[in-house]
Amino acid sequence: MSAMVLEEQQRKTYSIGIDVGGTKISAALFTPEGKMSSRNKSPIDTSKPEKTLFQIIQIIRDLESHVEKEKAGIKAIGIAIPGIVYQSTGIVWAPNIPGWEHYPLRDNLQREIMIPIMLESDRSAYVLGEQWCGIARGLRDVVFLAVGTGIGAGIIVDGILCRGSEDIAGAVGWFALDPIFREEYAEMGCFEAEASGSAVARKAIQLIKEGESSLMFELVNGNLESITAKTVVEAARKSDVLAMKVIESTIKYLSMGIANIVSILNPQMIVLGGGLFQSGDFLLEPVKAEFRKWAQPIAAKNVKIELSSLGEDAGLYGAGKLAWHTN
Amino acid sequence: MSAMVLEEQQRKTYSIGIDVGGTKISAALFTPEGKMSSRNKSPIDTSKPEKTLFQIIQIIRDLESHVEKEKAGIKAIGIAIPGIVYQSTGIVWAPNIPGWEHYPLRDNLQREIMIPIMLESDRSAYVLGEQWCGIARGLRDVVFLAVGTGIGAGIIVDGILCRGSEDIAGAVGWFALDPIFREEYAEMGCFEAEASGSAVARKAIQLIKEGESSLMFELVNGNLESITAKTVVEAARKSDVLAMKVIESTIKYLSMGIANIVSILNPQMIVLGGGLFQSGDFLLEPVKAEFRKWAQPIAAKNVKIELSSLGEDAGLYGAGKLAWHTN
Repeated sequence: MSAMVLEEQQRKTYSIGIDVGGTKISAALFTPEGKMSSRNKSPIDTSKPEKTLFQIIQIIRDLESHVEKEKAGIKAIGIAIPGIVYQSTGIVWAPNIPGWEHYPLRDNLQREIMIPIMLESDRSAYVLGEQWCGIARGLRDVVFLAVGTGIGAGIIVDGILCRGSEDIAGAVGWFALDPIFREEYAEMGCFEAEASGSAVARKAIQLIKEGESSLMFELVNGNLESITAKTVVEAARKSDVLAMKVIESTIKYLSMGIANIVSILNPQMIVLGGGLFQSGDFLLEPVKAEFRKWAQPIAAKNVKIELSSLGEDAGLYGAGKLAWHTN
Repeated sequence: MSAMVLEEQQRKTYSIGIDVGGTKISAALFTPEGKMSSRNKSPIDTSKPEKTLFQIIQIIRDLESHVEKEKAGIKAIGIAIPGIVYQSTGIVWAPNIPGWEHYPLRDNLQREIMIPIMLESDRSAYVLGEQWCGIARGLRDVVFLAVGTGIGAGIIVDGILCRGSEDIAGAVGWFALDPIFREEYAEMGCFEAEASGSAVARKAIQLIKEGESSLMFELVNGNLESITAKTVVEAARKSDVLAMKVIESTIKYLSMGIANIVSILNPQMIVLGGGLFQSGDFLLEPVKAEFRKWAQPIAAKNVKIELSSLGEDAGLYGAGKLAWHTN
């Protein structure tokens, strides 16, 4: 083997991972083993679709120059998108980024960048990240349940990312969990209307407006609309009756939703993430106890329910994994 | 190429498919293209576990002799089991067959039969069969929802059978669909307690016992316990108020369960089968209308909801497919 070929083979290779969020963009280099470096984070510029595009190109160029200094190479670039990625066309639908409602992101990027680019929905990136470097490392059947302003799931079945026939698998926010249909369900789905972070805040505000007294009123200095899920959890920790009522209802629906994922997919682990689970054990422990009441008993016995160990970085790791992923 | 090698290559090869049911065993030969021949069906002998085993061996021997007469070969044998198949050990759990609660079926068969044997749960066989030769032919994302005495689903994700980490994926009878927990749910799961064929009969009997009048009473000559789901459907077709009430509730839960499968997996098609759907359009049309109210709208728009086209043969075709299947 010639020295040149040997050098080429031993040349270090990175992937670039980019997590495009609603408010910021994170990016980093990743080795095939999942070691992260040159990490950076910046507020996203959504003033125009081309500005967001240019910002991503700039981030890639910066990381490329890092890599060139090391005389290393880049295998591919993975990007996590806060919305839907249509894999066959590379078109994205990310309603929180103006102009990205039906945006040909992959084509627009590949006009400027010669390195292969892979796009993936944020929820798929979360589960890939946790499976690569987080709490679900190495597992073959794992689901990431993200509960924040919305509810969605990233799903890996037998080692393969489950995207569905239209790339929108994991829309578990639409789980039907209550036979009495309420108006909100039509907008966002029953599970999301009952158990998302936004739902927790909305329900608390509603009950206070209906005249129930609560510690929360003081916590937000009377400014009801600034109540968030965090406020509700804080008040519930202090045994506020109204907050506890809202949290109990949330736990019930979360348990049902988790049970449904367990029964249909029989995963090894469900990883819980998103804003609502930043309260940690406060929601985790009751949910872990109650979902068993609903789920298929053998599947319930064998599944592990864990909090995300990568937290806000799950999507970034997942994006970094895309380049090293075969699926 | 020598004449002998050519002959060997052109030698016709079959698979054997065997569908072991609770009351009968069906078996047939299958070409790689799904053409069925030498089909037979016999009542199952469950007097002793060894008797059932011997019966299966005898069925295989008979089909082998057919194939030998044709100077053809057998690639492999697929067997659908009414229960759970633990793939790594070949042990089956089929509670309706005495002695098969934890039975080493694959080992016991392979001691007598030299041809490779693949076992699969009946619900996985149903979906494989429909995908191979039925209404879902050639689709890559398809779910078979079987609603009979129980409720279960066979799932194909991106062309691959989804078995779950303990080989019990598809236990959708355990879907939590009603936050008010009832005692029966602990035994069989909420969805199954509310919408299986047995649930339909049980609910009707209960309401009549509570004193509500119904045409069904005459349909079964006053012998309430002989009411089946079929009786309820028959009475509902004749506008019997009690029967219609039971059917409406069933439609509601079926719609919710179907919606949940659509939202989480985003399949191309859901195939409906099992005893309850033998009433055909009577349940199908209302369910097709109502599930859309609950499911993720894009996924709901794109999925096809169809009745099984293979009916009772879905499991037999699926068993026949196992040998030609790569997963």
